[in-house]
Amino acid sequence: MSGPAGTTPHASSRAAVLDVIRAAGTISRVGLVNATGFTGATISTVVRRLIDDGLVLETGRAESTGGKRRVLLQLNQSSRFAVGVHLDHAGITYVLTNLGGAVVARMSRAGVGTDDPPVVVARMATEVDALIEGAGADRSRILGLGLVAPGPMNQTSGMRLVPPAMRHWDDFPLDRELESATRLPVVLDNDATAAALGEHWSGDVGATSTFAAVYMGTGIGAGLMVNGITFRGASGNAGEIGHICLDVAGPECWCGARGCTEVLAGPAAVVAAARADRKLARAAGIDSGSGDPSRRLADFAAITRAALRGDTRAKELLERSARHLAVAARTLANVMDLDQMVLTGPSLALAGSIYLPVAQAELDRSFFSRATHGVTVRLSRSAATAPAIGAAALVLQSELVPLREGLRLPGNLADAEPTAQPAGR
Amino acid sequence: MSGPAGTTPHASSRAAVLDVIRAAGTISRVGLVNATGFTGATISTVVRRLIDDGLVLETGRAESTGGKRRVLLQLNQSSRFAVGVHLDHAGITYVLTNLGGAVVARMSRAGVGTDDPPVVVARMATEVDALIEGAGADRSRILGLGLVAPGPMNQTSGMRLVPPAMRHWDDFPLDRELESATRLPVVLDNDATAAALGEHWSGDVGATSTFAAVYMGTGIGAGLMVNGITFRGASGNAGEIGHICLDVAGPECWCGARGCTEVLAGPAAVVAAARADRKLARAAGIDSGSGDPSRRLADFAAITRAALRGDTRAKELLERSARHLAVAARTLANVMDLDQMVLTGPSLALAGSIYLPVAQAELDRSFFSRATHGVTVRLSRSAATAPAIGAAALVLQSELVPLREGLRLPGNLADAEPTAQPAGR
Repeated sequence: MSGPAGTTPHASSRAAVLDVIRAAGTISRVGLVNATGFTGATISTVVRRLIDDGLVLETGRAESTGGKRRVLLQLNQSSRFAVGVHLDHAGITYVLTNLGGAVVARMSRAGVGTDDPPVVVARMATEVDALIEGAGADRSRILGLGLVAPGPMNQTSGMRLVPPAMRHWDDFPLDRELESATRLPVVLDNDATAAALGEHWSGDVGATSTFAAVYMGTGIGAGLMVNGITFRGASGNAGEIGHICLDVAGPECWCGARGCTEVLAGPAAVVAAARADRKLARAAGIDSGSGDPSRRLADFAAITRAALRGDTRAKELLERSARHLAVAARTLANVMDLDQMVLTGPSLALAGSIYLPVAQAELDRSFFSRATHGVTVRLSRSAATAPAIGAAALVLQSELVPLREGLRLPGNLADAEPTAQPAGR
Repeated sequence: MSGPAGTTPHASSRAAVLDVIRAAGTISRVGLVNATGFTGATISTVVRRLIDDGLVLETGRAESTGGKRRVLLQLNQSSRFAVGVHLDHAGITYVLTNLGGAVVARMSRAGVGTDDPPVVVARMATEVDALIEGAGADRSRILGLGLVAPGPMNQTSGMRLVPPAMRHWDDFPLDRELESATRLPVVLDNDATAAALGEHWSGDVGATSTFAAVYMGTGIGAGLMVNGITFRGASGNAGEIGHICLDVAGPECWCGARGCTEVLAGPAAVVAAARADRKLARAAGIDSGSGDPSRRLADFAAITRAALRGDTRAKELLERSARHLAVAARTLANVMDLDQMVLTGPSLALAGSIYLPVAQAELDRSFFSRATHGVTVRLSRSAATAPAIGAAALVLQSELVPLREGLRLPGNLADAEPTAQPAGR
């Protein structure tokens, strides 16, 4: 299984019904008919099979609205699980989620550093085993493993054009090796896209909402959701605001372009500036000499703590980064004509309280369509784990395909249902 | 009728069938069953009504593939018409298209200049009459009028946050006044979005393709098509690359932000730079004193002609503008992960041969996902009229709603069709 299956147009009625039940919490069969547009006969058949497979439970009855009280259905949350892995050179985050996407176990381990990919894959297999065993989950009930990493991601072979610190991962057949090591189906994606999906599944945004997740981990990116579906673009790499130009005469970025958001504002730039400022480095307690990329997130955390303690130089440095990220967020809002954004990712889990007001002020002041509507920016409640949660959601989406807005009846239902009947029951 | 109706999720089966016939050119009823996912019975009913209404014709038979030869259907192109109007302070372009979107008449008239909106509306009504009469079209067969203008557009009342030269149009109830003056239903939209739709209907791109139309008229913008549907964003103003920041320390733009593409690279900036350069102004034959915005497109044309004649200063000036526009196009490609772009709009109709190679080179060199796929840029074949064609297409879309990719069966068909039947005939 390569590539997220969640957005295939060949959504089965089973997957569609499962996703409606997930989004609703509890729902009756009549509610499913109304929500999906399927007939009562189809809903009866699909629901019976879902119950037989243990994925759905009958749970009490709804309040009467006149007539017979209706049996309510809900997901059997612990009937299936998914593993989500967020791989980065500065750290690897693992989550195990249930069928509803709720996190039942999580752990963080050392990043990939300069280790060779096969060594890291072997370690990940061990760590995934530990995650599953620690949670006491039945391995036969694990649907698969989603792995997300800095993009651009080539969904059939692995990472392409990776950041300098992970260059030795270029074109390593990550999905195949990881499938073989973990004996789980593997799906790969871009970390920022997964972060958006993680925000979507975490339930702070509406089920069919359109928003961008502005992501800062060791790099900068964004994930896009349009009507509750991840917007992927031609190769799954939409949302690359880390490499848009904010200064045509700016410094050269590792990607080959000039004045990118990431080279001006990313954690690496912040840490480099702090290391070059002896007073600031001392105040933050970071090593002014080293340039070890695997320490980057730790150093960024130390600078953030210094700023939050009131150190002026640290605060000014982060606010300068925040102003650049805010301009990139405004570009994204202008291009997509957005009204909702969420700040997420490990670096914004640390420094979000400094970045949020700067981003909101920039959008209030300069978003192009501000005469028509505003853009609301909020800080994620799960900024550190959103990419891993999204990675697990990629796996769950292969069973639980969101109904597209307006897609009332998947094409293949015509085959499953030779005679239509009036909705009932 | 306010706001483009083409993207409503409540697409009727009639509109969907009409659009499939339009896109196919000729198609059999069995072909329609396959393309739409509707049953044979539904197709028979819908096609019979379309023929009765004169919108569709039966036209010969397909080659036999064994069995009965199938009757082919096609649009009755001249059964209905639509008026498209592209309003700008530098000029007003009118087109009359037939049901298939082909231009049957066009004309260009003076721009709105400093005239008061009611005066311009009265003039437009006269000019629309002249367009219709000149083409000999039967007024009762005109479906409506699409009007597009610089955005952001508030689809219920008219223009908002308009460029300085059109500030007196702010909040003028354009749709209502124009409906009353022309006695035609009116739909409003952003000129850049309409340009993308015009490119789509002009048929140079695939029916379900995803691309951006990078637009330069008197301003800069872009229109986005995703799977053959206009991507509108929260308020119909997606694609605003004219007001993304290319230089955080750049000059202030009329929109209130700094270093926008438009203030650095737009025709107004090019013309102002040329006027300030006495040698260049003389070489191009433009008035070095005047700042009249209604002359802007004419002056930009004069500078372009000088560049194409080989004037070095004019060429350098346009290439500087092209480099900025190219960086904005790269931002758009990175954010949407695009693989196709088209350069369009009145200014690129003039200077496209200078801008095209610069944009292609920038994307080849610096598009972020270039290791995964390239971005092909081409010059529109109808760059000057694309917005007006798109304006007419907005009207036609209210009858001919494109099927979304994956949307096989609109929701309301369930009501229209109580019993499903195997596809046949």
